[in-house]
Amino acid sequence: MSTAVRVEPARQRLRDAIEHEVAAVFARHAERARARGPEFAQLWSLAAGRMRGGKLVRPVLLLETFDAIRRAQGRARPVAQPPPGILDRAQAVRIAAAVEVLHAAFLLHDDVIDGDVLRRGRPNLIGELIALADDRVPGERARHCAETGGILMGDLLLSAAHQAFARLDADATTRIRLLDLLEHTIEETTAGELLDVALSDGVVEPDLDTVLAMTMRKTASYTFELPLRAAVILAGGSRELETALSAAGAHLGLAYQLQDDLLSTFGDAREHGKEAFSDLREGKQTAIVNAARMTSAWPGIAPHLGDPPLTAETAALLREALRECGAERAVQELVDEQLDAALALVTAEAAVPAEVRAVVMRLIARLEGRRA
Amino acid sequence: MSTAVRVEPARQRLRDAIEHEVAAVFARHAERARARGPEFAQLWSLAAGRMRGGKLVRPVLLLETFDAIRRAQGRARPVAQPPPGILDRAQAVRIAAAVEVLHAAFLLHDDVIDGDVLRRGRPNLIGELIALADDRVPGERARHCAETGGILMGDLLLSAAHQAFARLDADATTRIRLLDLLEHTIEETTAGELLDVALSDGVVEPDLDTVLAMTMRKTASYTFELPLRAAVILAGGSRELETALSAAGAHLGLAYQLQDDLLSTFGDAREHGKEAFSDLREGKQTAIVNAARMTSAWPGIAPHLGDPPLTAETAALLREALRECGAERAVQELVDEQLDAALALVTAEAAVPAEVRAVVMRLIARLEGRRA
Repeated sequence: MSTAVRVEPARQRLRDAIEHEVAAVFARHAERARARGPEFAQLWSLAAGRMRGGKLVRPVLLLETFDAIRRAQGRARPVAQPPPGILDRAQAVRIAAAVEVLHAAFLLHDDVIDGDVLRRGRPNLIGELIALADDRVPGERARHCAETGGILMGDLLLSAAHQAFARLDADATTRIRLLDLLEHTIEETTAGELLDVALSDGVVEPDLDTVLAMTMRKTASYTFELPLRAAVILAGGSRELETALSAAGAHLGLAYQLQDDLLSTFGDAREHGKEAFSDLREGKQTAIVNAARMTSAWPGIAPHLGDPPLTAETAALLREALRECGAERAVQELVDEQLDAALALVTAEAAVPAEVRAVVMRLIARLEGRRA
Repeated sequence: MSTAVRVEPARQRLRDAIEHEVAAVFARHAERARARGPEFAQLWSLAAGRMRGGKLVRPVLLLETFDAIRRAQGRARPVAQPPPGILDRAQAVRIAAAVEVLHAAFLLHDDVIDGDVLRRGRPNLIGELIALADDRVPGERARHCAETGGILMGDLLLSAAHQAFARLDADATTRIRLLDLLEHTIEETTAGELLDVALSDGVVEPDLDTVLAMTMRKTASYTFELPLRAAVILAGGSRELETALSAAGAHLGLAYQLQDDLLSTFGDAREHGKEAFSDLREGKQTAIVNAARMTSAWPGIAPHLGDPPLTAETAALLREALRECGAERAVQELVDEQLDAALALVTAEAAVPAEVRAVVMRLIARLEGRRA
């Protein structure tokens, strides 16, 4: 209890700073959008509303790591002389907010691709746009209009994330390193998403290596590698630290996405927020499905995957089958392995200062207890 | 004849420089894409193929204007002393290529939104992806996979355009001015596209002002305003010149899009490249349709607009009706008015040097004879 109370206010301050910056980005755009017609202004206002209440996992990690590196630098260099290339904290907050905006862009295009209209248990932007158009035009047209809004707002948020990186007031080397990182992240994520859809649509044959490579690319890269590496670059940390955190971030990100898959199939949809059983209905080739494929239960499971009208009853039976055949346990073991590997990395690597190690260890502890 | 021969080699040199730079951008990405799986590598390779053979209207205008401003500066300041903030020509070529890449990103998301599978008379990227997936999975899934590729490649090209602007080796003021311009362009274009779809889907009521505002935003901004203003900023031209060319660019861009609408409805699809009658099938609310709405022919026209199974025969009759009711002529007059306004602006404005005026006048002459 007392530990929780000691930790939370610090995290809350980080969250407040990020939310404030994200809101400022949206306010700037919404202000200009008013001159571009009521539909465009409404789109920005709805999108701003969708940004509130997020978990802010990625930007909080970025700022926690940035602050930890700074503290470590202060310990090593007690004289009030910042290392060369160091940036002020306001810039780290702007990049943290941009990481959250990038996440929102990815989610939005993901939702368009998957045809999802719910996110975090309530209508996503597309769902809200459908509801608004629905009373004026037939359902098909309302949906087309809403998905168009989703594609275009995704483009706008992707652009806004780039703008934040591009406007950084830093020396050219630091800016180019951050731009390289952003480019790497976007390539990884789109490659993962492409493979995810190709697997679901049956264009690519599934096997565990392919499914794990997809899982890693789609989420690991931008969830933990991006904030950890951005923090190092912004704080002027060493290349060795960046390399170590990049490797740890890959393990953590894979664990996180595998947990997402577990929560999406076995968790409480009200807590987790995605549509219940949507992965099963879409026939997502997750590590869970892949583990089940190796078991004798597979012939009873396979016909129901990728069946959009799947009923809640059949889905619940399917979930039981996935649990009983050992697929849930197998993926949980994969998660534990990944978390162990991340822990081993930050513990063994001399370039990781104690302050940064503590941040990663707290993250691992939160992931171990994750339910949403 | 001799004039054509004198002009063409210069334009061809500009085209070569731009094509070389665009190819270099794609080669860099394709090289890295190979490490991210065969599907991702194939997507980049197909996208690179789609970039070849474009008209390069926008980047050529940028470089022509950049070179013209440089010549004017050389005349005013004959000593070999560049004005402050001036950038080398290689950077202008990189931004010109980025403008073409941005155009490709917009086209691609536009095609996804419109459900188009042809562009310039042959399969677009989505059409090519459908053909590749079609022999492996059912049609619906092949199309979903292909449209996913279209969305993701659009995101990658949008990112690549931003990266080129962000990496500019310039003083902060110049970089921020270019980033402001890029942001303005993307907001205008997405606002126009959103309104275009809302009009087509019947979510917004059409009237001439709304249709022209949509037309202006959707294309004018990024077709001529962006390259003209970017050229001024890159060459270190005056704010007055930027303002004048911005206004002229708006007129030119509106004329260009209205011509596109005319060509799409009345032109030769083999020359123009879009699917024949696709605007009529999609029920696009163009200025042509709006002009027809004011005439007694409207009751015979309206029921066929936005009818996806529209036959070529009915479409041809519809085209005749749009011609005979005077809608074609009315829009052609609008085009002429816009070209006249652009000409008046660059002629009257003292901030526009003779070299730049000549570039805009040559552009107007080409637009007057435009057939594709």
